[in-house]
Amino acid sequence: MDDIYKGKRSLLLKGVRVDGTLSDILIDDQGTIAGMGKGLAGEAEFVLEGNGAFALPGLVNTHTHAAMTLLRGYADDMPLQEWLSQKIWPLEAHLTGEDVFWGTKLACLEMIRSGTVAFNDMYFFMQDAARAVDEMGLRAVLSYGFIDLFSEEKREQEIKATETLVTALKSMRNPRIRPAVGPHAVYTVSPEGLSWIAGYAKKEEIGIHIHLSETEKEVNDAVSQWKKRPVKILDECGILTPRTVAAHCCWLDRDECRLLARRGVHVSHNPASNMKLATGRAMPYHWLREEGASVTLGTDGCASNNNLDLFEEMKVAALLQKFAWNSPTVLPAGEALAMATSAGAKALGFGRGVIAPGEPAHLVLVDSRAVCNIPLHHISSNLVYSCSGSAVKTTICQGKVLMKDRVVPGKDEIIREASRAAAALVKRATDNAG
Amino acid sequence: MDDIYKGKRSLLLKGVRVDGTLSDILIDDQGTIAGMGKGLAGEAEFVLEGNGAFALPGLVNTHTHAAMTLLRGYADDMPLQEWLSQKIWPLEAHLTGEDVFWGTKLACLEMIRSGTVAFNDMYFFMQDAARAVDEMGLRAVLSYGFIDLFSEEKREQEIKATETLVTALKSMRNPRIRPAVGPHAVYTVSPEGLSWIAGYAKKEEIGIHIHLSETEKEVNDAVSQWKKRPVKILDECGILTPRTVAAHCCWLDRDECRLLARRGVHVSHNPASNMKLATGRAMPYHWLREEGASVTLGTDGCASNNNLDLFEEMKVAALLQKFAWNSPTVLPAGEALAMATSAGAKALGFGRGVIAPGEPAHLVLVDSRAVCNIPLHHISSNLVYSCSGSAVKTTICQGKVLMKDRVVPGKDEIIREASRAAAALVKRATDNAG
Repeated sequence: MDDIYKGKRSLLLKGVRVDGTLSDILIDDQGTIAGMGKGLAGEAEFVLEGNGAFALPGLVNTHTHAAMTLLRGYADDMPLQEWLSQKIWPLEAHLTGEDVFWGTKLACLEMIRSGTVAFNDMYFFMQDAARAVDEMGLRAVLSYGFIDLFSEEKREQEIKATETLVTALKSMRNPRIRPAVGPHAVYTVSPEGLSWIAGYAKKEEIGIHIHLSETEKEVNDAVSQWKKRPVKILDECGILTPRTVAAHCCWLDRDECRLLARRGVHVSHNPASNMKLATGRAMPYHWLREEGASVTLGTDGCASNNNLDLFEEMKVAALLQKFAWNSPTVLPAGEALAMATSAGAKALGFGRGVIAPGEPAHLVLVDSRAVCNIPLHHISSNLVYSCSGSAVKTTICQGKVLMKDRVVPGKDEIIREASRAAAALVKRATDNAG
Repeated sequence: MDDIYKGKRSLLLKGVRVDGTLSDILIDDQGTIAGMGKGLAGEAEFVLEGNGAFALPGLVNTHTHAAMTLLRGYADDMPLQEWLSQKIWPLEAHLTGEDVFWGTKLACLEMIRSGTVAFNDMYFFMQDAARAVDEMGLRAVLSYGFIDLFSEEKREQEIKATETLVTALKSMRNPRIRPAVGPHAVYTVSPEGLSWIAGYAKKEEIGIHIHLSETEKEVNDAVSQWKKRPVKILDECGILTPRTVAAHCCWLDRDECRLLARRGVHVSHNPASNMKLATGRAMPYHWLREEGASVTLGTDGCASNNNLDLFEEMKVAALLQKFAWNSPTVLPAGEALAMATSAGAKALGFGRGVIAPGEPAHLVLVDSRAVCNIPLHHISSNLVYSCSGSAVKTTICQGKVLMKDRVVPGKDEIIREASRAAAALVKRATDNAG
């Protein structure tokens, strides 16, 4: 492996464009941006020629189930309940920790190749996911999907599983990996479970990652069962905090947007998944924006997207918001880019998501000579509407080079092992069903 | 230039996967598929190792304004009328034939790199567009955008321009390039103009390319001015034929879907453009399908998309249809793939759009080891929902190799000249405005 991939080395990026201006960027051996400027004087162990590439803050995916890359394309174009009960759940019942390890490695490979440096993940076998993230060098917030189904016995198990994961992740002492608590949703976690989670997350000073108001059914069921809309339920249980990321949020009403903004909750917009599963309504971005809420971007898992390319997701977000709210001015390119970078970084506590001295060096270099960037009238427009993640040449997370000129170390092994794991998983599930 | 790009040579593709089955494909020196099978015996001037790539029929883009790649990212996120009158039209007023030549070459480069082998184009300076297509080796149907604005004098000019183009294109004797007539829309072309077009297209045995019911305003204005919906106007003028491609079709009612189906018209679905410009309604695919209409796929011009990647467009189509019509089962992956391949090829008269002996060899090879194809549960799902055009390795049009292992001859010159032309165009428009 080329030494440049090893990290903990100072690095000088020469001749990249930051907000359109040509600059050098010096990164110290702790992965912090130490200096910026034209013809920067400074010594570094490695020098990387930028060739005028656009330097962007690394993208941040605020809602994933990374290991579900193994289920990519396994079942599509089906009604939600049928898809879950006949296809997804039976397969997930046979998942092993090793599957999650390889699925998460494949997800990390895909994220690195499309410019994502950090993600917010909720799934099972999360210690195996952590092992994958550790090897791949991204930043991640990892949570165990807490589902008590309103049973006290199950709740005790989920509490134990959560505590075990948090302790294990903290003991890794990898500053790139943080634990969070992952209450699945109001329809799968009891108020008692939610209240415990709120207290525990506060005590441990860790994040909360939850699905919120994805479908109309979720809202209607909450109102009919609890006489409250989901946001109110979460608020009463103490779940709405500035450490909280709420995914989907398609069916928010205006008051709920205001409350999420007041509580400092970060919303994760997941447009491709919402469209594919026909949630019936797009997240009300215009209301959230007017209320001053933090809106970030996520892909959801690969079973319902079916990729992890945040460049594509920025475009789908900008298109969906315009279409759904009937205005071509909603979510312009610059705001889509901010959702995927600065808003995401702040939501996960990984810096401010900007390229500036003192900030962690989370950045990607986009090929300014790629066809999608020709001609060049406005950089942000090309990045959002024209390019896919394939225009990213180099990905750097906290100063560590994860991809250089589209080469990610270990790619072939990941492709081989993830393919093998996916095929074996389907075989186990099929043999068992037969 | 490598000899393999020269065309008119027989070619053997070894070890590609057609519908999942490993096969060789023999292409004769006329660009026709001569044989298929495992371990095919046959001699060819060139042998191309497929390495298990997925062989797909080449994609067909049935609605473009190719030269508008020069305007990519020039103006976005604006209300339609402001965008057109303040940004697009002032720039177009300064377009030259040379601009259209380089803009079309850039478009062809982008299409080749994302697996498109044929397109249906409407714009100005179309002889320059034809020169670009001729050099790039794709197939295209080219039409001059006929706009008479209900003036007899302008109509005579447009008739002359149309006749001149058709004569010029026929005299090129390039079997890959065909003329069509391009009436812009019912709100820009008089019934007299439409009737002339219908008669002329029939006499010349050429296609018709028109915008239809893109916005609600178009429908409302037609009803208030003519007491008829747009489809009825076109039908009375003889425009609805099996040689006709109607783009957009967002605001069709059920009766209009039925009539388009009966007349054998090919609808071009343009989901990204429709979403970006907030047309307010998605093309009613489910009705068109139920009525048996031919539905194809197009990107529209780069000013309103902003790329020409039909892989991305397939995904956006499948997502939009599900979202807009509130059902996750609408437009499954296999149908999206057929829209972009067989339906498009039939609409433009470029074969059946399938890989079979006797068919023209319009085909692309998609890297089966690309991350978007890992794991491989269902090929069509990965192609539609997971891959972008960057997974295409090789593009072949009528037996001529246009891209091999992502190398397109002449790429650097096109990037340089298109960039220069776009900058000069903006400068001319700005100098003139000042």
